[in-house]
Order: sequence, then structure tokens, then C-alpha cells
Amino acid sequence: MDFSPSSKGQEVLTKLKSFMREEVFPVEDQYFKDLKAQANPWVVLPIIDELKAKAKAQGLWNLFLPKSDYGAGISNADYALMAEEMGRSFMAPELFNCNAPDTGNMEVLVHYGSDEQKKEWLLPLLDGKIRSAFCMTEPGVASSDATNMEATATIEGDEVVLNGRKWWSTGIGHPDCKVLIFMGLTNPDGPKHAKHSMVLVPKDTPGVKVERMLPVFGELDEPYGHGEVSFTNVRLPKTAIIAGPGRGFEIAQGRLGPGRVHHCMRAIGAAERALDLMIKRATSREAFGKPIVNLGGNRDIIANARISIEQARLLTLKTAWLLDTKGVMGAMSEVSQIKVVVPNMLQTIVDQAIQMHGGAGVSEDFPLTSMFAYARCLRLADGPDEVHRGLVAKLELLKHK
Amino acid sequence: MDFSPSSKGQEVLTKLKSFMREEVFPVEDQYFKDLKAQANPWVVLPIIDELKAKAKAQGLWNLFLPKSDYGAGISNADYALMAEEMGRSFMAPELFNCNAPDTGNMEVLVHYGSDEQKKEWLLPLLDGKIRSAFCMTEPGVASSDATNMEATATIEGDEVVLNGRKWWSTGIGHPDCKVLIFMGLTNPDGPKHAKHSMVLVPKDTPGVKVERMLPVFGELDEPYGHGEVSFTNVRLPKTAIIAGPGRGFEIAQGRLGPGRVHHCMRAIGAAERALDLMIKRATSREAFGKPIVNLGGNRDIIANARISIEQARLLTLKTAWLLDTKGVMGAMSEVSQIKVVVPNMLQTIVDQAIQMHGGAGVSEDFPLTSMFAYARCLRLADGPDEVHRGLVAKLELLKHK
Amino acid sequence: MDFSPSSKGQEVLTKLKSFMREEVFPVEDQYFKDLKAQANPWVVLPIIDELKAKAKAQGLWNLFLPKSDYGAGISNADYALMAEEMGRSFMAPELFNCNAPDTGNMEVLVHYGSDEQKKEWLLPLLDGKIRSAFCMTEPGVASSDATNMEATATIEGDEVVLNGRKWWSTGIGHPDCKVLIFMGLTNPDGPKHAKHSMVLVPKDTPGVKVERMLPVFGELDEPYGHGEVSFTNVRLPKTAIIAGPGRGFEIAQGRLGPGRVHHCMRAIGAAERALDLMIKRATSREAFGKPIVNLGGNRDIIANARISIEQARLLTLKTAWLLDTKGVMGAMSEVSQIKVVVPNMLQTIVDQAIQMHGGAGVSEDFPLTSMFAYARCLRLADGPDEVHRGLVAKLELLKHK
Amino acid sequence: MDFSPSSKGQEVLTKLKSFMREEVFPVEDQYFKDLKAQANPWVVLPIIDELKAKAKAQGLWNLFLPKSDYGAGISNADYALMAEEMGRSFMAPELFNCNAPDTGNMEVLVHYGSDEQKKEWLLPLLDGKIRSAFCMTEPGVASSDATNMEATATIEGDEVVLNGRKWWSTGIGHPDCKVLIFMGLTNPDGPKHAKHSMVLVPKDTPGVKVERMLPVFGELDEPYGHGEVSFTNVRLPKTAIIAGPGRGFEIAQGRLGPGRVHHCMRAIGAAERALDLMIKRATSREAFGKPIVNLGGNRDIIANARISIEQARLLTLKTAWLLDTKGVMGAMSEVSQIKVVVPNMLQTIVDQAIQMHGGAGVSEDFPLTSMFAYARCLRLADGPDEVHRGLVAKLELLKHK
Repeated sequence: MDFSPSSKGQEVLTKLKSFMREEVFPVEDQYFKDLKAQANPWVVLPIIDELKAKAKAQGLWNLFLPKSDYGAGISNADYALMAEEMGRSFMAPELFNCNAPDTGNMEVLVHYGSDEQKKEWLLPLLDGKIRSAFCMTEPGVASSDATNMEATATIEGDEVVLNGRKWWSTGIGHPDCKVLIFMGLTNPDGPKHAKHSMVLVPKDTPGVKVERMLPVFGELDEPYGHGEVSFTNVRLPKTAIIAGPGRGFEIAQGRLGPGRVHHCMRAIGAAERALDLMIKRATSREAFGKPIVNLGGNRDIIANARISIEQARLLTLKTAWLLDTKGVMGAMSEVSQIKVVVPNMLQTIVDQAIQMHGGAGVSEDFPLTSMFAYARCLRLADGPDEVHRGLVAKLELLKHK
Repeated sequence: MDFSPSSKGQEVLTKLKSFMREEVFPVEDQYFKDLKAQANPWVVLPIIDELKAKAKAQGLWNLFLPKSDYGAGISNADYALMAEEMGRSFMAPELFNCNAPDTGNMEVLVHYGSDEQKKEWLLPLLDGKIRSAFCMTEPGVASSDATNMEATATIEGDEVVLNGRKWWSTGIGHPDCKVLIFMGLTNPDGPKHAKHSMVLVPKDTPGVKVERMLPVFGELDEPYGHGEVSFTNVRLPKTAIIAGPGRGFEIAQGRLGPGRVHHCMRAIGAAERALDLMIKRATSREAFGKPIVNLGGNRDIIANARISIEQARLLTLKTAWLLDTKGVMGAMSEVSQIKVVVPNMLQTIVDQAIQMHGGAGVSEDFPLTSMFAYARCLRLADGPDEVHRGLVAKLELLKHK
Repeated sequence: MDFSPSSKGQEVLTKLKSFMREEVFPVEDQYFKDLKAQANPWVVLPIIDELKAKAKAQGLWNLFLPKSDYGAGISNADYALMAEEMGRSFMAPELFNCNAPDTGNMEVLVHYGSDEQKKEWLLPLLDGKIRSAFCMTEPGVASSDATNMEATATIEGDEVVLNGRKWWSTGIGHPDCKVLIFMGLTNPDGPKHAKHSMVLVPKDTPGVKVERMLPVFGELDEPYGHGEVSFTNVRLPKTAIIAGPGRGFEIAQGRLGPGRVHHCMRAIGAAERALDLMIKRATSREAFGKPIVNLGGNRDIIANARISIEQARLLTLKTAWLLDTKGVMGAMSEVSQIKVVVPNMLQTIVDQAIQMHGGAGVSEDFPLTSMFAYARCLRLADGPDEVHRGLVAKLELLKHK
Repeated sequence: MDFSPSSKGQEVLTKLKSFMREEVFPVEDQYFKDLKAQANPWVVLPIIDELKAKAKAQGLWNLFLPKSDYGAGISNADYALMAEEMGRSFMAPELFNCNAPDTGNMEVLVHYGSDEQKKEWLLPLLDGKIRSAFCMTEPGVASSDATNMEATATIEGDEVVLNGRKWWSTGIGHPDCKVLIFMGLTNPDGPKHAKHSMVLVPKDTPGVKVERMLPVFGELDEPYGHGEVSFTNVRLPKTAIIAGPGRGFEIAQGRLGPGRVHHCMRAIGAAERALDLMIKRATSREAFGKPIVNLGGNRDIIANARISIEQARLLTLKTAWLLDTKGVMGAMSEVSQIKVVVPNMLQTIVDQAIQMHGGAGVSEDFPLTSMFAYARCLRLADGPDEVHRGLVAKLELLKHK
């Protein structure tokens, strides 16, 4: 159980931190202001392309792909600390081609894609030329139970025909989003985990319609966004199915382990940022003749934040280390553990940071409400807290059988 | 300690509930959709004027003014239950001319306004013809300590000259907002609670500039809104000062007691609505073969919500009863107690309702994120939790002296 | 919903408070020291008999029996405030013949006892000459589900024969304990709520054996105590059955409503005492150059304690008022609500009071650990938190059907 | 940051686990029953001496002393996992000569003792022939602020004279307790951290009097116990002072780092035991037709317990690793972090385990109330939560200076 970064990991991390310090933090405020000032904010501003090019040139690119011919060959444990660093700014992940859901989609293609699928979609994704979305959650049913899925991917001869309605398809609003991964029911009468298929859908295929973009606590998260998408008789060749019909669940399972570590480490980075902001505000403003930090229980809040961040980080690093050393099956409980504990930790700390900022905290002058929305969504996305607690308990009870 | 409504209170409450059921709930969804669809949503849609007229015709008007020549003459205890009812819909309070900050501003004018001030501003406010804003909080200092206030209201001959910057001036975006109550420093060397004045400022006075509208968790709350406002050498006759120079704190003190009861009762109404939505969703969706309500700790969440709402309501009713029978000074601890407990209760229940809704909970398909934003702001507005806890503790310790 | 005491209630309450102040508080420390110093602490010290006589002489006797020919004829709402007062000292309830489980047992006899049963057991209980126990919970099964009960009360001719093992039979260690109420299975195949009988068992009946006294957090609660009792072929005439065979559940149901209000109000009295002790300690000791009360979040703790006590009291008073005005069936949700909220509130406040006392808090120099044990047991006794939350949720869901 | 045990550590840990499984767990129930059945339970039962001899013979002895000529030479990181294992049974630590406060006292002597002091006290302690106590906390002042200490250790010629009153002197009731370490004021006018001395006091020195043994939640923790001790003109040669006059604080500081890790790891062992008991009970009892574990939020409780134990362990292991690699000064924040988080975690889990046991949970049939008392005391001993949170916050704020 060694959580220290490898020497390669340490080297890349140092370079990444310096990139964040020199290239990202100084421009992010202006970037978000510029973006909001656009009549149409669903665009890629030039600064993004510039920074992507710089990051790529420095080798800070595709860091999330461990031991792969395609990526940077960095272990989950090493990447975890990088994801934390990227999590400090909402602007950062894409700059390193490390943003969800593209990371998960690329992993799926690396592991399950055909040569043709790789050539058509994986290479441009790895290159940062196009973006993608993942269409799994549905508005009509409780998606916490994946077996509720109603969308269909029916085989008709050499074609697969998609029908259904998805939502919370993150990234679908991005102007470069060219491909969706759609999951649907192919063999309704097959065994429980062999009923569904994953299909690669070019976004401009007839029958695909983005019905609306969904706000999260009032924010649309431009230029990525979260879409509600209808699929009406969308016809594609069977070769669009990833790994063949009926393997959707298997792929989904493998996709989510590392993705959850990434989300959690980014959330830890966000929590560090929130604590940082909290301390800056609490030490720079006065009330009742004292810096706010010296009033009431404020120091306790800071101490508790530090303690809960430390604990969350260690558990997430252990999970990354387990993924590296024992694989997804050897990290099942831990993946669910961090998925419960980290977003809740972030939500709590951000809530307290908001309180310590007074009215400014709920405005857009600080990134706190965005962090709050991120935390709040993470408690639902990739499985709600309840499902993950259930899995942790189930595995715990198995030890006693 | 009798919390039952009086017979008059009961009668009005019954009428109000029926108005809500027949006129408000059926149209509110469409109203908010129509409003959001406007190119410029800072407008009063016709349905609002229609419903205001109906409500007025039924005597459901200015219900918040107890024992007054101007209002409906309803006690705080009776009004509390009405405020709860109105709190179930964000659309409702204005329909009965009972929305903040106009209610507080009207109360100030009833109690402290000169005849001239009453004629010019109170009567049209009571009539629902104009709206108002209250300019107290400042961006540059911790406003939780009111003595931090930096804006000035300097007497120069027969004039008072206003300078400073305010924010969270709620309602200032409303097209009918015609008058602001501004609070500023008049006698910097006077005794601690006689330094400030409150001044009535027509919104179109030269030197008054709404610099921007502030989003709360991404929502601008059109058509009311929360503004950041600069006052630059705003000159007004001394007669614009309410109750004379140096009485700002005294007025503010009296303004806040009933206002906090109103806020809290509306929050209780919102909590009932959130619980209602939670139960509807939890009983109508299934996962893992059961209605969601029967999974894990969900019934516990519902039970705890019911218990905390009941407790919060009783404490708020007691506070209203104390205001009626012992006045603001006799309800000081209780006013602060509810100000702490009710918004936190609402925040918790809404957070849980969001969780039970899944992704839909963070979208705009349900009023949950708006309720969340309301709860979150209430924990800061009219004094943050910390200040109110401090006051409750101080009064508690005094009993032991 | 009028929670003010009636004029008679106010008069008795005033007398009771003065009795507590003059007769109880000054001697309680010494009483418990004397009791602990006994070789055999399962005794009634003379001071108890003395104070009982004084209380009786003042009419402060059997205050818990509302509208009865037997008791003081005080409503639940009026008695609630008296129970709170008694709850401030563990020594108090018996002095007024108002201690559990005798109160509940007397109520059962008033409502369901035959003339003979009343004469034999009720009158001496009302007189304070004997004490009683209630034998319901069983060690071998989860007693949170009352239908799990395994003990039997089998009818054989004119006799009823008892077999089984009970525990947490409170009061059975008292030297004056002469009678037990035993609940057991009579018609195993009868309808779900008509299977059990309640039987009056003289403690010295052959076959009744107190196996051991159970400590609660290390305390035996002398001279009352909580016993584990075996019943082996205990034979009694059928006339010992209360209200006839098969009515056990019906009686249990009615017994518990007022009893839970009593428990909760005593717990509120204990919470007030704990808050009082907390403030005394926090204002009288210094650390780091300040009274402890001014350190960190301590004032917040005091404020939160005050707020949660106020809320718990109001909800309990409402429940008492409902019992008076709508009966047990009209107060079902509220009885369960207070049973959840009040013991948890007490446990939290006592835990914080302990923390503020430092090491002294966990010792016997203060009544805090006894209060903690009381709170902790109350979360299990008369139905655990979980069962009560379940009932509250169930009744809440019924409103939506 | 490598938390895996070293190969030597792993070897000893395996041996220890097997000792616990084969020698300790099978006898502990009987041991505590036998002890409680003693007329005088302040004794060492033969089983203890037997098991000590066995453990010593297997090299499972003095495992807590890292890199020392005197102990087992095991790092803090390695020992941490052994302490966890010992923490599963209250009977265990002494068997391996690893129980507080002897461990801390031995460490003090190893690092600061003179040759003579080592010969007289350290060797028999290392040998397990005698036991010791540590006399620091005082009843008369808030000992959370160590500068409040009032006891004196006055130099008079070649002697040091002790006066004062101490309490919570753990272990002083043990029949083998032969020596106390007393801390008192020597130079009242010296610099803040050079005022106090630590003095070795044979327990039978004239003037030393154990006034009473203090119960903790009703338990006296025989045969160790916690004493209140008066020191009246206790005269000793100056050579009894450890490391010379005025070095008391310096010694205390160094003593506490590893000691806190030991306490926390034992608490984690206790938490694992509590979770184990909770699951056994919840899966073996039924209510409402289901195993208790499947009712309401019980699985959530189990999941949360697992998650909080994992997090607490990782943070404690990191702290041990920091102590090994960076020394006490490099682990200051982390030592305080675990001191806050671990006892609270244990208290919460034990409270929930009690609830899941029903009445049995508060009795002595399970070790749960003892674990609760351990957790509760740990939140006060070696610095209360508040002081440790204060230190964590202070160090956090320093990063921002």
C-alpha cells in the first residue's frame, strides 16, 4: 500500500502543477467572464485551443490512460494526484484532454473498440479534435437501477436501430461533440447482464435530436452542457456496436471504476480550493472587531475540513492503488466508498465556504456555487449515494457469510 | 400560549387556501415557463395583475399588517399560517401584496413614516401599484456586523447626500420598483446605535445606478432580482429621511422581527411542498423491484422531515404569538432561534428531496433548486446563522447572571 | 392548540416547583451518596418516605392520572409541564407517586382492571405502599417487533399458566415491588392483535425468579433496577388476567401514549438540567485566558441546545394536548415523533455537557452519565427509534393515498 | 507514503493475530466474568500472568518501542496495525506489555531517564513486573489548558517537595502499580514551557494518598482504574526528577505523539469489533419478518461504519508513518487530526451497534458500553477534541501566512 507517486508520476505532477500555476489560474477568471459575455456561449474560445496546444507540447496530455499504447502510460495512483490538481479549476481538465465523459469514452474504445472504431473515433478524441457524450440515464425511469433502462438498440439485419430518450448526456452541447455512446436494450429476454448494447452514434445521424439543455442549479455548464436527447429510429450499421451486441453492462462496469476515482480526485482538488478560499475570506474580513476566522466555531470548521479532505484523499489514493494492483474487481467496495464520501465531503465544505463568504458566496463572484453544483450532481451521477452504500454494505455482509 | 388561529384568522386562511388551490397551483408551472421564455423576463406578466386583482377583491390583501389602519389587521400568529401557505409557491406572495421586501418597507413607513412619506410611498405600495427595495448590505465589508457599514448619508444644509455601494438589494430589478430605502452613516461619532439614517430614495434619482443583477446559485429571480447598486452624491431633501437622522438602527431592529417570522413561515410552506414532492416521487418510481420509498433509509428521511417541520412550525408560531403578546423585545431569542433552525431545516429537506428525485431534482423541472437557493440565502440574509446563534447564547447566559 | 396550563394546572405546577426547590434539590446529592454508601442499596431510605408523605400532604400525588376518580384529575397537557419539572432530578418522580412503570401500570388498572384487581393492586399502588414492574421485553427475540413475543400465558381450566423469560423489567429490584404485569401468548392461532394476554402476577408466586439485575452503562439504578426474570409454570387463577384473555395488545397500545409523553417531558427536564450544568461549568472555568464558554464553538453549542429543547418541548406539549383532545388514535404520529426526537435531543445535549465538563463529566460527580444512560435507554425502550420513525413515515404516506 | 507493513512487521503481526485468535478471544468473556465475580476485583487473575508469559515467550512483548535497545524495535507504522489488533479486546494490551499509561511512561524513561532511573523503574516495567501511573490532570482547573496546572514540585535543597491534587491517574488501582510520574510547577516565574518538572514517585511514599477511584460511565475499569490522588508534602531526592527541573513540558510533548497513535489504533480495533458485533446481531435476529439488517437504514449504517473506519485507519497509518519519517514535529497536525476523528468515529459506531442490539446493547452482555466509555473518555483524555481542532486550524492558517 504505497501511495507515494512513482518517479515518473512525480515528474509529470510537478510539470502539471507549474502549468496550473503559470497558465491556468492567472486566466481562469477572465476566461469565465469572457465566456459568459458571449451571446452564444456554446463555443471554444481561442485561449482554450492555445492552452491545449501548450499542454500537449509539454506532454501533459491524455494523462488518464494507464499502461496504454494510446495514452501517457501513467498508473491510476499517479494520475489520481494529477486529477486532484486539475480539479482545482473547472477550466483545467479539458486542457489536458482529461475531461469527463471523453476520458471514459476513450477508455471504452481502447479496451473494447474495433480497429475501425478506434481509427474513426478514438484517434481524434485522443488528439483532442473532437468531443463526445455518453447517453445512459433516462428521464422516464429511476436510472439508479440500471435494469430499468427502456431505450432499445434492436438488431434488424445488418443494422441496429435505436429508440428512446436519454438525459444528463454531459458534453453534448460542446460544438466539437461529434459522437455519442448510446446504451440500449438489445435482448430483452437475455440474461440480466447481457441484454444491453453500447452503440457509437455520430451526433448528426438522422433521428438524433437534442431536445433541450438541462440546467444544474441554474447553470448550463457551457460549452459542455447536459442534454436531453431523443433517439427516433436511428439506424446504424451493426459495426457501430461496441464489442458486439449484449455486452453493454460488461463495458459499463469496467468504464466506471477509474472514472469514479477521477471524479473523486477532482472533487478533492475542488475541496482544497474551497478551503483555500474559505481561509482567505475568513482571515481578510472583520466583524465584531476580529477577523471572521476567530469568531465562534469557524476554526473548528477549518479543522474539520482539513481532516475530512485528508481522509478522503487517502481513501481515494488507496482505491487508485487497488485498481492498479488488483483491478476493478479488487476495488469494488472502495470505489463505492469514495463515491459516497468524497462528493458529500465536498458539498459540506463548499456549503461552509459559502457561509463564510456571506452573500458573495451564493453569487458568481466566486466559483463556490459551481463547486456546490458539481458536488451535488456527483452524489447522483454514476450511481447515487444510496446505491453505493448498498454495495458497500453487501460486500461487508459477504465477509460474514 | 394559544396557537390556534382566531376565528377571523381561520376564515381568511380558509379563503387563502382555496385561492391557492384554485388560482395559483394550477397556473404556476406555466407562469414560470412563460416567464423564462421571455426575451426580457424583467416584466410583470398579465396573469400576475389578474390574480392580484382577484385576491384584492376577495380581501386577501396586505395580510401581513397586524392591527393597522392600513392593512388587514391580522395578528402575527394568524398571519404566520397564511405566510406558510403562500410559501408553497414562489409565485404567491406578491399576489397578496405580501412579498419581501415590500412588506418590511411598508411596516417601516406605517410606524415611522411622515404623513408626506406615507402619502407618496406607502399608499401606492399598499395598493400594489409600485414595488420597493431595501439597500443595507454592502459588498466591501462583513455585513453580519451592522456596525461595519461604510455607506454615508451626510447632512448638508437641507439636504442629505448619499454615497456608497450596496448589494443584495432584493426586488430592485422589478419594473415597478420605484423607491429604495437606503441606510447609511450620518453621525460617525455618535453613540453606536444612533449613527445611521434610513432614507427614502426614488429609484430614478441621479447618482443611483444598478451596477448589475446578482445570480443566486445561477438564478436571477426575475422579475424581482437582487441588485448591486452604487450611490454617488445622491442628493435628496432632508425630508426623505425616515423618522429623522440617526434613527436607522432603531428602525431596522423593529423591521426585522415580524419579517423573520414571515420568511420562516414561508420556508415552512416550502418545506411542506418539498416533502410533498419527495413523497410523490418516492411512491411513483421503482428501482430494484420496489417503490423507491421502500428502499434503504428513505422512510426514515420522510419521518425525520415530518418531525423537523412540525417542530419548526411550532417554534415559529410561538414566536409569532410572542410578537403579538410581548412585542419584539419579548421575542428576541425566539426570533433568532427560528432564523437559525428553519432555513437549515428547509435546506436539509430540499437536499433530500433532490436526492430522491435523481437528476430531475437538480434540473428546473421541479422547484427544488429554487427552494434550495431560497433556504441557502436565508441562512445569510437578515443576519447569518452565526449571529443569531450568538444572540441566543448571549440571552441564555444572561439568565444565569 | 392552546398550550398554556389551566389555572388548576398552573397552581399545582407552582406548588410542585416550590417543592422541588425547597425539598428535593437541596437533598438529592446527599441522598445518592448515602444510597451508594449502603452495603445493600436496594432499600428505601427514610428521606424518601418522609418526602413522599410531605408531597402527599400537599396534594402533589398521582398527578399523572387525568380525569380519573383515582388520581389528581389533571390533563395530559397540564401534567406534561409537571413531568418536566420532576425530570430534573432522578430522585423526584417517586416522591409524587409518578414514576414509571407504576404510572403505566396504574393506568392499565384504572381502565381495564376488575373491581377485585383494583382493590388488591390499584389502591395500594395509588397509595404508594407497593411498587410494580412490567414484564414485556424478552431476551431471546427482537422485541422491537411485539409479535415476536415467545412467552406464553396458557389457559388451563380455571387457571392461566405462565412460561417464558423477560428482561428489562424495570422496578423489579425495589423492595416494595409486589406485583408484575406479565404479557404472554394465549391464542397462538388467533388474529394478530388478539393473541396475547396481560396477567397480574404477585412477585412471590412460585415459578417467578429474578435471574439477575441488568446494568445500564454500568449502573444498576438502585433501588429500582432492571431485572431479567424467568417464569416457569407460574400458575394463577384466570381472574388474574386483565380484561380477559387476548386483550394484551389492546391494553399495551393504550398504555403507551401518555407514558411516552411522560418519559419525553422528564427527558426535557433532564435536558434543561444538563444545559444548566453546562452553562455553570462553562462560565466558571477558564482555559487559555478566557471562560470556557467563550472558546471556539461553545456558544453555538449552548444556542443549539436551547433551540432544540424549545422545539422538543413544544412538540411534546402539542402531543399531550392532542391526547387530551383527540385521544390516543388522534395523537399516534405525534407520540412517535416525540419518542424519536426527545431522547436523541437529550443524548446530544448531555454528550456536549460532558465534553464541557472535561473528566468530571464522565465521573459520578455530576448526574450527566446517568442522564446519558436515561437518554440512551429511552431510544430503545417503549419501541426503538426505528419503529417510531417507521410509524411516522407510514402515517405520512397514508395522507397521500 | 508506504503503509504496507515491513516484512518483520508483517511477521510479528501474523503471530499476534494468531495469539489473539487462539489465546485471547476464547477466554476473554470468562475472564471478565471471573473478574467481576471477585469480592475484590483489584487483582491480577492467574490467566493474565499465564498469557503474559506465553506472549513474552513468543517475542510478542514491548512491541510499542520503535528502534530501541529496550523494546522490539518495531516502527510506529508497523506497530500501529498491532495496536489495532490489541484494541479488539480490553484484555489484550497488558498481555503484550503494551498498555497505557505504562507504554508512555516507559518511553519517557527510555528517552529521558537517568541510568539509575532506568535501572530502578524502566527495567521492571519492561519486564512486566510492575505497573505505573501518570499524574497530570487536576480536578480544580480546566486541564485542557496545561498552563493551568496548580500542583507544585518545589526544589528545597537536595529535595523536591510535591503538593497538589491529581485525578484521572489511570492504572493507579492496579495491585502492581509501584511508581507514579507526577508533573508539577517548579519555576512559577520561568518561561512558559520551562516551569514544570516530571518526578518519579514510588507509590508508597509518605504523603501520597489515593483518595478515591473514579467511575467512567459507572465502570471502575478494574484492576487498572482511574484514581484521584492527593500529594501532601511528598519529599523525594532531586534525582527523582526526570531529565532535571523545568523539562516537564518538553517531555510531555514527546510522550504524547506515539501514545495518541496507539490510542487511535486501539480505537480502530474496537470499532472493527463493534462493526463485527453489529453485523452478527443484525443478521441473526428478525423483526417484521426480515433479518434486522434488511430493515430501514441499517445497511446504510453498516456501509457508513465501514467507510469511516477505512478513512480513520488510513489517516492514522499516515500519522504513524510521519512519526517514523519526520518525527513528532513533522506529524503535529496529523496527530491532532486523528485524535479528533478516531474517538468520535468509534463513539458513533458503538452507539449504532448498541441500537442494533436493542436492550442487550446497554447491558454488560456485550462489550459495547465499555467501548463507548473508552471512546467517550478518549475525546477528553490527552487533550479534548476542541484543543486538537484548534491546533489543526492553527497549523492550517499558518500555511496561508
